[in-house]
Amino acid sequence: MSQSKICVPVTTRGNYGKFKSVMQAIVEHPGLELQLLVGGGALLHKYGDFVEDGELGGFEVESSLYFLLEGENPITMAKSTGIALTEFTTAFNSLKPDVVLTIADRFEELAIATAASFQNIPLAHLEGGEVSGSVDESIRHAITKMSHLHFPASEKAAERIQKLGEPADSVYPVGATSLDVINNLDMDDMESVESELRDKGVGGSVNLHQDYLLVIQHPVTTEYEKNREYIDETIQAIDDLEMPTVWLWPNMDAGSDAVSKGIRVYREHSNQEHIRWYTSLPIEKYGKVLYNSACIVGNSSSGIRESSYLGVPAVNIGNRQQGRHRGSNVVDVPHNCQEIKAAISQQLDHGRYPPDDVYGDGNSGDQVAEILSDYEFSIQKQLTF
Amino acid sequence: MSQSKICVPVTTRGNYGKFKSVMQAIVEHPGLELQLLVGGGALLHKYGDFVEDGELGGFEVESSLYFLLEGENPITMAKSTGIALTEFTTAFNSLKPDVVLTIADRFEELAIATAASFQNIPLAHLEGGEVSGSVDESIRHAITKMSHLHFPASEKAAERIQKLGEPADSVYPVGATSLDVINNLDMDDMESVESELRDKGVGGSVNLHQDYLLVIQHPVTTEYEKNREYIDETIQAIDDLEMPTVWLWPNMDAGSDAVSKGIRVYREHSNQEHIRWYTSLPIEKYGKVLYNSACIVGNSSSGIRESSYLGVPAVNIGNRQQGRHRGSNVVDVPHNCQEIKAAISQQLDHGRYPPDDVYGDGNSGDQVAEILSDYEFSIQKQLTF
Amino acid sequence: MSQSKICVPVTTRGNYGKFKSVMQAIVEHPGLELQLLVGGGALLHKYGDFVEDGELGGFEVESSLYFLLEGENPITMAKSTGIALTEFTTAFNSLKPDVVLTIADRFEELAIATAASFQNIPLAHLEGGEVSGSVDESIRHAITKMSHLHFPASEKAAERIQKLGEPADSVYPVGATSLDVINNLDMDDMESVESELRDKGVGGSVNLHQDYLLVIQHPVTTEYEKNREYIDETIQAIDDLEMPTVWLWPNMDAGSDAVSKGIRVYREHSNQEHIRWYTSLPIEKYGKVLYNSACIVGNSSSGIRESSYLGVPAVNIGNRQQGRHRGSNVVDVPHNCQEIKAAISQQLDHGRYPPDDVYGDGNSGDQVAEILSDYEFSIQKQLTF
Amino acid sequence: MSQSKICVPVTTRGNYGKFKSVMQAIVEHPGLELQLLVGGGALLHKYGDFVEDGELGGFEVESSLYFLLEGENPITMAKSTGIALTEFTTAFNSLKPDVVLTIADRFEELAIATAASFQNIPLAHLEGGEVSGSVDESIRHAITKMSHLHFPASEKAAERIQKLGEPADSVYPVGATSLDVINNLDMDDMESVESELRDKGVGGSVNLHQDYLLVIQHPVTTEYEKNREYIDETIQAIDDLEMPTVWLWPNMDAGSDAVSKGIRVYREHSNQEHIRWYTSLPIEKYGKVLYNSACIVGNSSSGIRESSYLGVPAVNIGNRQQGRHRGSNVVDVPHNCQEIKAAISQQLDHGRYPPDDVYGDGNSGDQVAEILSDYEFSIQKQLTF
Repeated sequence: MSQSKICVPVTTRGNYGKFKSVMQAIVEHPGLELQLLVGGGALLHKYGDFVEDGELGGFEVESSLYFLLEGENPITMAKSTGIALTEFTTAFNSLKPDVVLTIADRFEELAIATAASFQNIPLAHLEGGEVSGSVDESIRHAITKMSHLHFPASEKAAERIQKLGEPADSVYPVGATSLDVINNLDMDDMESVESELRDKGVGGSVNLHQDYLLVIQHPVTTEYEKNREYIDETIQAIDDLEMPTVWLWPNMDAGSDAVSKGIRVYREHSNQEHIRWYTSLPIEKYGKVLYNSACIVGNSSSGIRESSYLGVPAVNIGNRQQGRHRGSNVVDVPHNCQEIKAAISQQLDHGRYPPDDVYGDGNSGDQVAEILSDYEFSIQKQLTF
Repeated sequence: MSQSKICVPVTTRGNYGKFKSVMQAIVEHPGLELQLLVGGGALLHKYGDFVEDGELGGFEVESSLYFLLEGENPITMAKSTGIALTEFTTAFNSLKPDVVLTIADRFEELAIATAASFQNIPLAHLEGGEVSGSVDESIRHAITKMSHLHFPASEKAAERIQKLGEPADSVYPVGATSLDVINNLDMDDMESVESELRDKGVGGSVNLHQDYLLVIQHPVTTEYEKNREYIDETIQAIDDLEMPTVWLWPNMDAGSDAVSKGIRVYREHSNQEHIRWYTSLPIEKYGKVLYNSACIVGNSSSGIRESSYLGVPAVNIGNRQQGRHRGSNVVDVPHNCQEIKAAISQQLDHGRYPPDDVYGDGNSGDQVAEILSDYEFSIQKQLTF
Repeated sequence: MSQSKICVPVTTRGNYGKFKSVMQAIVEHPGLELQLLVGGGALLHKYGDFVEDGELGGFEVESSLYFLLEGENPITMAKSTGIALTEFTTAFNSLKPDVVLTIADRFEELAIATAASFQNIPLAHLEGGEVSGSVDESIRHAITKMSHLHFPASEKAAERIQKLGEPADSVYPVGATSLDVINNLDMDDMESVESELRDKGVGGSVNLHQDYLLVIQHPVTTEYEKNREYIDETIQAIDDLEMPTVWLWPNMDAGSDAVSKGIRVYREHSNQEHIRWYTSLPIEKYGKVLYNSACIVGNSSSGIRESSYLGVPAVNIGNRQQGRHRGSNVVDVPHNCQEIKAAISQQLDHGRYPPDDVYGDGNSGDQVAEILSDYEFSIQKQLTF
Repeated sequence: MSQSKICVPVTTRGNYGKFKSVMQAIVEHPGLELQLLVGGGALLHKYGDFVEDGELGGFEVESSLYFLLEGENPITMAKSTGIALTEFTTAFNSLKPDVVLTIADRFEELAIATAASFQNIPLAHLEGGEVSGSVDESIRHAITKMSHLHFPASEKAAERIQKLGEPADSVYPVGATSLDVINNLDMDDMESVESELRDKGVGGSVNLHQDYLLVIQHPVTTEYEKNREYIDETIQAIDDLEMPTVWLWPNMDAGSDAVSKGIRVYREHSNQEHIRWYTSLPIEKYGKVLYNSACIVGNSSSGIRESSYLGVPAVNIGNRQQGRHRGSNVVDVPHNCQEIKAAISQQLDHGRYPPDDVYGDGNSGDQVAEILSDYEFSIQKQLTF
């Protein structure tokens, strides 16, 4: 029997963390063959240098695709999607995969979904069916409507995908694949993390043995004009608290430039001995930093998903994650310095929460591979109602 | 009060017919201003020459956009969508419309929807919520998930859009706008049509005073490899019947090349005194040709929609229109010469059907304009479940 | 010793004819390996269907590149060049050739030259150093300034390339490679040609045993607005002469649409029993049709180059070939019906000319391969003055 | 008489400095009208934030064009050129300029030249005819072969342009336009510069009252793999010298990423109290910093051109400027730490040189405008030999 070729496009360090256990399971499955593509932010130094000599974490890279137009605004986001569509079409036509994987709701994922479905290649979607703010909300459900097989991260999300008219037998709630990696970490061993965090990044020096904060604030594309104002509120709050802080740079969505500028201006004009900035962290390190933090602050989905699994107190700011299912560990606040500070204090007082398994139990990758090896795809989609 | 700028992108002669009454109503509405873009097939001689000197049917054209990559296969369909996304992003950024209109399910409509929504421009979608075959099915619902306002052509379609998680107060079943034009035609006056049909086109000469057939067969993108086989079955059937036949060239979807080649080969090697081919017909002429035909044959949506409104017998071939709501006037057959011939004979025996108003009553344009002038858009989308 | 990989991009039937003997010589040379790319017009039915199942004339195709934007005007010519640049960059990056071949002066050749030289891949240019009209003149010399090795078709062209500041030891006047194929034809055996010409094409039927004309008129891009007027003059002349005529469709340059439209309008409204149109002809057939014609008419470079080698009387119309070295067999006329007719009559009276070897002796392919196998490239260019 | 529309595309802070006096002269000329386009690096924060609210230095911006694909390697350089070609084609088609200006030899200038000449818009080229290393050498002369009017910066360059086959009456050696701005600076007034240099940039603090170095090292695209090694040699030299140093970030050519990385690694692991880095400086400030520096070091063209005009000692490293005409103030060295240090010491001992007017006298802008207002363009180019 010939192996089924599964094409996995990795475009950010974040989705590498989510695809890692899936890729491992594909490689180990006798009926499957991995075709790894790397593109966009995953190729750029400024988003963290992690592709080396045609390899990504030990997996061989078939092809590298450049599609990010510099500018980080709505125009370049739209045009980058157009370029990505051209680039992935070329790559899929050359590799002839049996299935293409797509994930969540970034703009390039819409390009990947379109390139595959226009070439009649079956499309499997991870992390569909969730609800959030930003243009991500539109992208995520549009991808669902182009996908043939669904791997949502929660039962609730699986339910929504079926309500969207997808056949029940195409929806497999496997949990969040990012938890697979986190699940296998020895959380008590912080030594290697500490030394790496000391050597990398810019800013002050952070003592991970004290209570520390983890901050990640991405732009909100649908409130594009306000992103500078939003980051300034958060900066003010963190500056006032004067706690050790690990701060991750924003992603490359429209508005990223405004968020970065807020941070750069702050860095140039203040003394921040207690804060250190990183473009990004590998999932193995990120998981440990998150697990051991006193509180995660910002609007990253990991402040909802991974933090609930780990029981880490979270302060979620603004609308970017609105509607996404959250555990009891999350306190929501608007973009307001005082409210952000108050919520962080409240979470520090509360301390760690019990773990929540709404996003699965950390064994998703094997399930995805197993289902992929068996699934009978039908290329013609049809609403169930 | 300043006028609301409504941007209408016309990319084929077919959707000009559908947008015409809407554009007229926009121009006449005191609260609205029309921004007309013309692109793709609408600019090309081979799909019918109908844009002249910056004007389209009397409406002034803001900008012309070229995005069709030659090839008419799945690769060029995907890449043309990428190019269209770039081009429409430039145009929308320059025109700054308050609303963009998109229609139905062609590939460039997905590009239009993406370009608008990534720039936070409200998007209104006509003809959403229908069900069909081909990749159109995926595109149509993906556009729905990006749209803020919906103008479906039937109550049934409106219902499906709501089931897809769109708020009830964003869904207005206005009917099919193409019926507006047809509604205003004097169907008995065939004189001007006859003279134009004599002068245009290639092939034999067709006597419109006898019973004649109207044939339109587009490619099925999801069954890309079979399009040559499919057209050959239809050609054989029509060749056998030896009736006067008006035959329209296929559209520019992937597979169009195979359909065209089948027709070209037939034309070069047979004698077809009774058939005449046209690249396309203006809606005013098309409406009359359809109304007066003995039977429409093929897989165009007008064989379902307009023909039911007009009570014209229709033979629908294959899966392209599967699931689309149809009246009693439609007989469905597979891509098989004998079955096609039998169905046509059956329809010729039956003759005209009573009109069906499932796709509205021919007054949709004014409704669209009126709703657009009033509607309060919220750019952040959110599922209703 | 490892083989040197020579990448040959074929983008029209015309340059397939020119590259054919070169590709044969590369394949047969022990030190060279062929990497064949096919793109643009070479992939399209309308420019003649000659790539089959990943093969082109027995040579295996590495990759197919679509870059022609529909429209055939100055805007689409420029944008198609931009798309071609993207596509060839991807292909060269994937194939890692040691040398890229480029030829003459079509717009996509500028894209090929740029894609190669920006990636530091040595570039060899055939048919540089000639002089002509149209934007071809600018493109040709721009490519020369990007090329590392030159294979001009004549001594005169070689001289010009050196005057343009290229080192003498990078310039090899090997003759016109298209003559290689023509050189090997049995010109008296017209049988196979006749049967193919009867089966292919559209229009009347042409008796090749009588004196017949060969007409090829391409658009002049720098006089874009006048191309319809220009073709109408030629049509009128040919219509008046009422001789058997083999007529080839124009290429895909800006203005092609206007030329095609002129021909289509003529075909729809006149009776042309003596003319037959072909989208293009394979070089083996074209060579025989040219050799046996009473006169070649129009503005193709083959009316200058191949016709002088074969001694065929030629009437060259307008500025497209201005400056290109010509033999005594060419009569130049402006775009004027009367002058065209008079010049054709004069040539018919004169009859065949003695052959001229200014464009070589039909053994160019082997020379190109031999030089490529030996040449020491230096990637950094430098003017000689 | 209607005004002639002159389109000026500004794509870097550097070429803004070169176009500034030209734009001023165009605006002030009664027969001319300015159409300003801004694109690429000129729009990006990381290359210096200097376009504000649709204005650039008081000139109104017609349109902003994004074309830089992230990656800064040969692939993205080639593809960015393809995207630029598409974007400038759209802009020129919309603005319908009478003349387009292009300058020097950056990759996007080739796109600008192609977009204009393919649309039959006359093209005027500044700074042609010079000789250098890198792919710039190929680009520069290719642009010359597409241009209709030439404004070289020196007599020697003018001579070369004529040798390249351009008509003598199309070549006007107006001098280097960047000197116009420098010419008007009060070099003794360093106060405003000092305060801005203190507030901007990153790194140590530089005392401009002491002898200080100015360092600018761009990537060499034709020696792409070696750029990291090259910058490391320079870094070592400057680190050893321990002099106050103003250091400008590299441009966005292929290889930029390697140069940047070398600098970043150095910054993270060393103590550099005597060095301060800037993404770029406005020409008015740059001119003063250059004039007052003890020595300029690196491979920028301003180390050849502006420095000779100002008599500033220069150490030019490597091949990037090979062949460019230089004054007696330049010492050339290879990429070797010891030789770089020795040359700097030699220059510090020597001190200031007498000014050299080989690149003009600082009144070029007015000459350009005057010639543009009068010149009779012929769109069809033709070699003079």
